[in-house]
Amino acid sequence: MSVQKPSIPKGTRDFGPVQVARRNYIFGVIRRVFEKFGFAPLETPTMENLAVLTGKYGDEGDQLLFKILNSGDFAKDVTAEDLTAGAKKILPKVAEKGLRYDLTVPFARYVVMNRGQLTLPFKRYQIQPVWRADRPQRGRYREFVQCDADVVGTNSLLCEAEIVLMINEVLSTLGLTDFTIKINHRGVLSGIYQALGGVGRESDLFVAIDKLDKIGRDGVTKELLERGFPQAAVDKVFGYLEVSGSFDEKLAALRAAFGQDGVLTEATAGPAKGLQDLTEVQQYLQDFGFQHFERLDFDVTLARGLSYYTGCIFEVKVNNVQMGSISGGGRYDNLTGSFGLPGLSGVGFSFGVDRIYDVLEELQLFPEGAVAAPLCLVANFDAEGRSTVLPLLRQLRDAGLSAELYPEVSKLKKQFEYADKRGIRFMILAGSEERANGVVKLRDMRAGTEQTVAAAEVAAALQILA
Amino acid sequence: MSVQKPSIPKGTRDFGPVQVARRNYIFGVIRRVFEKFGFAPLETPTMENLAVLTGKYGDEGDQLLFKILNSGDFAKDVTAEDLTAGAKKILPKVAEKGLRYDLTVPFARYVVMNRGQLTLPFKRYQIQPVWRADRPQRGRYREFVQCDADVVGTNSLLCEAEIVLMINEVLSTLGLTDFTIKINHRGVLSGIYQALGGVGRESDLFVAIDKLDKIGRDGVTKELLERGFPQAAVDKVFGYLEVSGSFDEKLAALRAAFGQDGVLTEATAGPAKGLQDLTEVQQYLQDFGFQHFERLDFDVTLARGLSYYTGCIFEVKVNNVQMGSISGGGRYDNLTGSFGLPGLSGVGFSFGVDRIYDVLEELQLFPEGAVAAPLCLVANFDAEGRSTVLPLLRQLRDAGLSAELYPEVSKLKKQFEYADKRGIRFMILAGSEERANGVVKLRDMRAGTEQTVAAAEVAAALQILA
Repeated sequence: MSVQKPSIPKGTRDFGPVQVARRNYIFGVIRRVFEKFGFAPLETPTMENLAVLTGKYGDEGDQLLFKILNSGDFAKDVTAEDLTAGAKKILPKVAEKGLRYDLTVPFARYVVMNRGQLTLPFKRYQIQPVWRADRPQRGRYREFVQCDADVVGTNSLLCEAEIVLMINEVLSTLGLTDFTIKINHRGVLSGIYQALGGVGRESDLFVAIDKLDKIGRDGVTKELLERGFPQAAVDKVFGYLEVSGSFDEKLAALRAAFGQDGVLTEATAGPAKGLQDLTEVQQYLQDFGFQHFERLDFDVTLARGLSYYTGCIFEVKVNNVQMGSISGGGRYDNLTGSFGLPGLSGVGFSFGVDRIYDVLEELQLFPEGAVAAPLCLVANFDAEGRSTVLPLLRQLRDAGLSAELYPEVSKLKKQFEYADKRGIRFMILAGSEERANGVVKLRDMRAGTEQTVAAAEVAAALQILA
Repeated sequence: MSVQKPSIPKGTRDFGPVQVARRNYIFGVIRRVFEKFGFAPLETPTMENLAVLTGKYGDEGDQLLFKILNSGDFAKDVTAEDLTAGAKKILPKVAEKGLRYDLTVPFARYVVMNRGQLTLPFKRYQIQPVWRADRPQRGRYREFVQCDADVVGTNSLLCEAEIVLMINEVLSTLGLTDFTIKINHRGVLSGIYQALGGVGRESDLFVAIDKLDKIGRDGVTKELLERGFPQAAVDKVFGYLEVSGSFDEKLAALRAAFGQDGVLTEATAGPAKGLQDLTEVQQYLQDFGFQHFERLDFDVTLARGLSYYTGCIFEVKVNNVQMGSISGGGRYDNLTGSFGLPGLSGVGFSFGVDRIYDVLEELQLFPEGAVAAPLCLVANFDAEGRSTVLPLLRQLRDAGLSAELYPEVSKLKKQFEYADKRGIRFMILAGSEERANGVVKLRDMRAGTEQTVAAAEVAAALQILA
């Protein structure tokens, strides 16, 4: 057999015990909050038919889809002419499946396939990996986990308010305090475009606006002028982008400005609806007793996902760590249209677990318990001790404690090293002397202390200490 | 946009809320037992390099691997001559990655890549999906989850004893009582082959033996004769296969028979080691205080995974349900040899979650709690009620209860139907009359009863009822 030096595909990662435990800790917090808010779990297959995936993520997305080679004689229909024509011609003949690229398209596909059985509104959460053949870089992987929660089948703005509550609860539970939940509305953005006179391309305006905190006023000005917006429009836009004050003050300022610019009319339904929705979301939060309005920022420059979001838009940033957004979402009008089921609207958001992981690590917020090491190691002195240490082991596990016996009779030094390296907190020592007296030594590896305990009471003693 | 009728790839499944909750319940039980026994979690990437996967599962396995098409212009190196030569020639030019086929090879790859950092013995568990391009049939899927636990770097038979304990604890915790943990040993099987005079092919003998409970004595006889075993050997083999009595009695009977046939010598180390190992495993279990020896069956006919298992072999059957084995494993000598790290032995086993799911469903053993519906739904009467029901919702969630407000003001009938369909147990009703009196009606949808509770105490009341 040939010997290989094994490796893993670029952009993918192994997760060892500590990382898995910490990731599961994050998933657990998110899952519990999702469930507390009434969301039910959904899982979809890793592979989807390419017919479902293709054309949903734009041309670039189609390029980034991982495709599965058909089984068996996959190339049987490929001709020499196909080879000349290139990959695009060959692809449909050799691959009919791809890996999940996000959780939204599979969700839409599920809703359409099960529309007869689903109870609307349908609230689902989904925590699963997705795959993208992106160029790997710091914080960007080819396999990463998304945590999505969506409600479809209702226009109620209670859902938007609850997204704010869920984001706040997840991040607070994880120990974060200094973060900002940015909120904006597609209608407000449209209002600004209309207020400028509807000149230029709407998407060009939004792309430039969204960069304000990165490239500043000068950068945005330059970009807009390059894109053909007249100077007057450029001058005007900053009046909108730089509204300031509280949530209410911003709403009032925008209402006044939109009014002055004549876009609060029926013909321009967007801005009026936007301001009204945001007011109502804020009202829901107040009625609920939301305590952290200082974390909620009505940010007129927030302009993400504009090809599909049609109502509120969200994005979350941690302020005391250099990191992109760790959560985002919004309301969409037409989740399932491309699968032949038009008119189903919904609202959803997603947590980026890999970024949250990095933030918690940088701020040292992982709790000690989020390490998957057993609580105690029973030392293995000699074969004669077996009839003592095995019942001990049983006693500990019956009490629900995680415990292991060192599997071999080895030098005590080696066993201590093992416990130390694995991060096991307690060593239980039952040498011949202890066994003669019906006791064990209980060593706290962290504190460096040791006590003698009746063998029958070691589980009880540990439950107090641990 | 063209309208498609979406579908999912054959052999894959969507899991809706109830199924996910039930599967998570099973995973949770398995995970807790693994951790209680000191195993630490590992997760490896969905994609592995084909260099890692190919050649590890036999020719059939290589066929069943799902391969990922290279990104970009994947066919650029394929020539017209390659097309004539066929898939085998083309494959290395168009695909360099494949989907995980099992958890053992990625585990071995991980151990080799991290050998400098790992603390031996290394106890890892891994709960992840695997993919095989098998022909789908009842109970066989192209995407399914394996739950593996392995210890590498020790020969201690404590590990084998703990496998029995873990299997027993997992299945007992899931509510199963009527199951059999079959155990055998590669050395015992070798002993039988040697006792027959070493005639015929060893693997032919084992394949036939393993079928005894399916095809009976006549079937095994026929198969062995067809495979060229002499009648005398065939007559003799049943003396071994039909040893009966307790674990100890079988050990004694085999020891006597092997002795008589002259295979308990140094030259035939297998059978002696086999009997000794099994005796020691039994002794560990006795010392631990294992209460269920009636579930442990020393089954001389158990012959699985003989191309890699070298010591004890396990297999688990549920007796009161028609179903293949739900767990299995064994000891192997050479986990990492093909990756250039020889001499690392270990022992491991795996739970088949899909089959366990079917068993629990058939025996109606899923607990009621394993359904992911919120505990209560707050009815949405009117816009005026919002300042009452939102604080109610907060009260419930602050108490850790899962609760939702029906998102729209709708007919009460519709809201009741929604609660009913989702399996929500309690409805909380705060109409104008209740609000005037500071109370709510609390309706138990399961019992059909209703009580009036002070609004401030609804969470406390629910915590008692739930």
